[in-house]
Amino acid sequence: MGNADFQPPQQYGRVEVPPPKPFFKSLAVSVKETLFPDDPFRQFKDQPFSKKCVLGLQYFVPILEWAPRYTFEFFKADLVAGITIASLAVPQGISYARLASLPPIIGLYSSFVPPLIYALLGSSKDLAVGTIAVPSLLISAMMGKEVHPAENPKLYVQLVLTATFFAGVFQASLGLLRLGFIVDFLSHATIVGFMGGAATVVCLQQLKGILGLVHFTHETDVISVMRSIFTQVHQWRWESGVLGCCFLLYLFTTKYFSKKKPVFFWINAMAPLTSVILGSVLVYVTHAENHGVEVIGHLKKGLNPPSLSELAFGSPYLMLALKTGVITGVIALAEGVAVGRSFASFKNYQIDGNKEMIAFGMMNIAGSCTSCYLTSGPFSRSAVNFNAGCKTAVSNIVMAAAVMITLLFLTPLFHYTPLVVLSAIIIAAMIGLIDYEAAIHLSKIDKFDFAVCISAYIGVVFGSVEIGLVIAVAISLLRVILFIARPRTTLLGNIPNSMAYRSIDQYPAAINVPGILILRIEAPVYFANASYLRERITRWIDEEEDKLKSSTDVELQYVILDLSAVGTIDTSGVSMIEEVKKNMDRRCLQLVLANPGSEVMKKLDKSDLIEKIGKEWIFLTVAEAACACNYMLHSYKQKGKITENNSSDQMV
Amino acid sequence: MGNADFQPPQQYGRVEVPPPKPFFKSLAVSVKETLFPDDPFRQFKDQPFSKKCVLGLQYFVPILEWAPRYTFEFFKADLVAGITIASLAVPQGISYARLASLPPIIGLYSSFVPPLIYALLGSSKDLAVGTIAVPSLLISAMMGKEVHPAENPKLYVQLVLTATFFAGVFQASLGLLRLGFIVDFLSHATIVGFMGGAATVVCLQQLKGILGLVHFTHETDVISVMRSIFTQVHQWRWESGVLGCCFLLYLFTTKYFSKKKPVFFWINAMAPLTSVILGSVLVYVTHAENHGVEVIGHLKKGLNPPSLSELAFGSPYLMLALKTGVITGVIALAEGVAVGRSFASFKNYQIDGNKEMIAFGMMNIAGSCTSCYLTSGPFSRSAVNFNAGCKTAVSNIVMAAAVMITLLFLTPLFHYTPLVVLSAIIIAAMIGLIDYEAAIHLSKIDKFDFAVCISAYIGVVFGSVEIGLVIAVAISLLRVILFIARPRTTLLGNIPNSMAYRSIDQYPAAINVPGILILRIEAPVYFANASYLRERITRWIDEEEDKLKSSTDVELQYVILDLSAVGTIDTSGVSMIEEVKKNMDRRCLQLVLANPGSEVMKKLDKSDLIEKIGKEWIFLTVAEAACACNYMLHSYKQKGKITENNSSDQMV
Repeated sequence: MGNADFQPPQQYGRVEVPPPKPFFKSLAVSVKETLFPDDPFRQFKDQPFSKKCVLGLQYFVPILEWAPRYTFEFFKADLVAGITIASLAVPQGISYARLASLPPIIGLYSSFVPPLIYALLGSSKDLAVGTIAVPSLLISAMMGKEVHPAENPKLYVQLVLTATFFAGVFQASLGLLRLGFIVDFLSHATIVGFMGGAATVVCLQQLKGILGLVHFTHETDVISVMRSIFTQVHQWRWESGVLGCCFLLYLFTTKYFSKKKPVFFWINAMAPLTSVILGSVLVYVTHAENHGVEVIGHLKKGLNPPSLSELAFGSPYLMLALKTGVITGVIALAEGVAVGRSFASFKNYQIDGNKEMIAFGMMNIAGSCTSCYLTSGPFSRSAVNFNAGCKTAVSNIVMAAAVMITLLFLTPLFHYTPLVVLSAIIIAAMIGLIDYEAAIHLSKIDKFDFAVCISAYIGVVFGSVEIGLVIAVAISLLRVILFIARPRTTLLGNIPNSMAYRSIDQYPAAINVPGILILRIEAPVYFANASYLRERITRWIDEEEDKLKSSTDVELQYVILDLSAVGTIDTSGVSMIEEVKKNMDRRCLQLVLANPGSEVMKKLDKSDLIEKIGKEWIFLTVAEAACACNYMLHSYKQKGKITENNSSDQMV
Repeated sequence: MGNADFQPPQQYGRVEVPPPKPFFKSLAVSVKETLFPDDPFRQFKDQPFSKKCVLGLQYFVPILEWAPRYTFEFFKADLVAGITIASLAVPQGISYARLASLPPIIGLYSSFVPPLIYALLGSSKDLAVGTIAVPSLLISAMMGKEVHPAENPKLYVQLVLTATFFAGVFQASLGLLRLGFIVDFLSHATIVGFMGGAATVVCLQQLKGILGLVHFTHETDVISVMRSIFTQVHQWRWESGVLGCCFLLYLFTTKYFSKKKPVFFWINAMAPLTSVILGSVLVYVTHAENHGVEVIGHLKKGLNPPSLSELAFGSPYLMLALKTGVITGVIALAEGVAVGRSFASFKNYQIDGNKEMIAFGMMNIAGSCTSCYLTSGPFSRSAVNFNAGCKTAVSNIVMAAAVMITLLFLTPLFHYTPLVVLSAIIIAAMIGLIDYEAAIHLSKIDKFDFAVCISAYIGVVFGSVEIGLVIAVAISLLRVILFIARPRTTLLGNIPNSMAYRSIDQYPAAINVPGILILRIEAPVYFANASYLRERITRWIDEEEDKLKSSTDVELQYVILDLSAVGTIDTSGVSMIEEVKKNMDRRCLQLVLANPGSEVMKKLDKSDLIEKIGKEWIFLTVAEAACACNYMLHSYKQKGKITENNSSDQMV
């Protein structure tokens, strides 16, 4: 113990009840903290009305904010970046559309309108808009079960567009209602596992294209796919296989090379387009399309046709479209927001998640009316954009212009593009999503997070994308529930030669004081953990009494609860403390509180518990509480045995 | 600041990384904390094998533990209590069965078998077993929608028995899997509101009986009920009304009297039985059954018939039975466990929630095979049991014996019991459940809890019991989510004349140190709040810089994060700290950590973040961190402006 062991108790600091706040003021504060933690209104403060209007418009349409400051220097950079990502957008668009069992042209359409909308509304400078692989696969998995894309292509496309519309509405309303934090409930570990699993599944699906198989399983799990492949060994087409392996090799080589020398990132970025060109020329020259190499075939020329009338609100499959839209919308959002945030953090600017959600939502609503399916900010394309040195969202406009030119004039060039090249492009992009390094990192730092990650992965790979998603969300929720329902309580001891009392687990040298039990509750207390804490505290006391009984003749007399970490408390928590107090009174123990925070003091005060515990038993620090208890213990010893009930009278 | 302002930094206490624990040991500890927080195996430790077997058997069948110590004194007390609660059980059983739209005799059956099972397996000494009002109403509301109890009585009874079976299985498995904490997620505020609303609804339903109406709405909301009553004013039967009002007056008077003089609690306890006797005699004498006063009619003599073959597992309504069983099972469990716990806490003994759940589950499984419907530990009956001085669960056996005698010999006596008396008994019991005092208490202590309570109440009263339940659970979950997603962060300042740094909200006198921002994170950090905290910390820094810019010429140089309250952290939390560190580096600010706990230190260490932050910037207390920063600030001033990057070198 420190040198203040026998200091008379009167000199201790007083724990204050926070000054009362008017109800509506504190309500306003908590609403603001809940819905506007980033305080978007700060810039509006103390501004004249006209300025406020301009700022408000700029808030919702960020291009108005940065366009006036746009320079030619910026444009040069954005032009290069835009062309680079366009060269990626065209083959990826076609590939992912095939993944979603949609006509390839819809993939191209989806790289034209949505980037333009995002350039107007989005606040990220680095995000490149486009279709994304995992939601594409999910669309085909969820929709394809009910409506077969080959048997009923028109209805299938209509439903996908409707799902996109719902996804957009859902995303925009999450943003408008400022409920963006719902996305945060998908933990990083969950996303790593889920994305890795989905990427594995997508790669497995591409074996169909690589091996040139005609019949293939509709299931996505690894066992069905493997069975489907190995029961058809005699159907494998070597032409297709050789072509696929060559292009895969080419893509991986460029990737490896670009990783080694980051200046040549464009080699990697251009690789998909060069593969497509090479593959098409090869097929055109050798007429391989007649020898088992499937090609894209005819692509319609022209820009996106309007599709508002295609939205199938009267369809009996409306609920399916709604479900698909909401689920794929959330996943697309999670990826897009995460990508936006990470690049913003590289370049040190802020992104408002809720505003991004509105931008994504509007982009998908507009997309669904112009023959586009679900888009977001894919990681691969955004990374290329960033590496290519983009400065603003103008790179998206440049990309859209390039795609427009493709749509108007160049679609016939894709007639001979072999599907196997598209499969190779997808595999090359997806392999990067299997983030085994992140999984290893998780396993090093937090075993539970690793278990979450692996379960999500296994669920996707051995079950289905939906099962994996359900497992991932369920485990994430379970984790949250466990975090809440089972807060840690630790035993504190005095660190030698200091006044600090710290957990004995962490500081094995810390000494506990005989006759005094010092416990620390390490989390806010509320209904979900109040009864656990009550039981756990009782167990601590039981164990301490057992220990003292067997070793020394000192009796346990004081229990100090360190409430420093109890940031908030609700009525159930207050009742818990009241019950602990009663329980201790029955056992002739004195309950002592150390460092209760403002919320705790406010609620203890309102429920008259401060009186019941006794003001003199509430201390500002654990050290003071321990000092006072020690002082009482020693004065007992000197004065002989006095009954417990007098102790509080003496104190006053 | 304290007097140690310019102490050289080398003398500060060192924050330790906790000693590494083997993975399986720490897993075992966390599994134990999660599933066995009450440590039921403690008594098994260091015992010979035979003793362990006996203890194990006693653990699962508690009667084996206390029966050997049972004395004649105990029996006398239990006999009195048992007879008292039997006098309540018979009329309540009949009334609640009617509430569940079941034949009255099933209510009597339910007070015979389940109490016997509970006496064997239950660990509460005060709980009296019986049917409960709210789940009874819920059964009729949920089942009655699909299968009309009057049109298809046999199927209805079968489904109710099946639902009881599922409720029992669900309860027992919650207990066996030690998932009892799920019940804790129904907060006290939710339960107060929901129970109050349900009691109101039950009372309103009784107006049918009191007014002698034949046709009545099937809805339970107040508007439908009122419309149904006031559109049938000419159908009101004054005989029934007068009788009902008289009995209500009688019941309330006895209740009031017993409250005033607790020794006469038995007057209140006997009142329902005396009402039934009085009412039956009155009807028999006046032949009021021919003048608009409905009576129970014929009740079959004899004990519970077996009903295993009645369980309708093949029925098309199986899912309905399952749903009803699970929902009513949870509510029954919540009431039973809460009742058991509160009386245990009065008499200072422990109750194991999970073991209680197994007992409830077994009791309902056995009940469903012997023509009983859902039972639990109703508050009213248990309170009477407690007041009557029961000592052990033998009072339940006595009650069962009394009910058995009733079933065997006395059922004809209930032929003339008027239904209006049963309605009066239900109303008198239910009024007590409308706990307006608890609601007032909630509104005083925690406005949000009050809002939860009122929403649940309004949902039940103006919507339906199910809507109310959904609202209650949804708001409880929302509350949990908000608690997690939006942890508090507070600004700390130095309390004058002490070394303590506390929240400026709570201690308005606390002074903050210019150039140093001290923030405290008041909750564990994990994926659900990591991105909020990152944004919030950035906002604190922005605001502090704005404030400093406008007032003084001091620049913000140090940000101290007080991590005392961060009990646990996951990988997302660690990434958050890493990002905050990067962000501060970019702004030329120094991140300083104060008092990270064992979990935090362990994970910072494993992710090499300690190196990145610098060991010398992690302090044992906020006071030491502030001291060191202040020291650096002042040595700057003396030495003139030095670039920020050197600061950490100087420190070492």
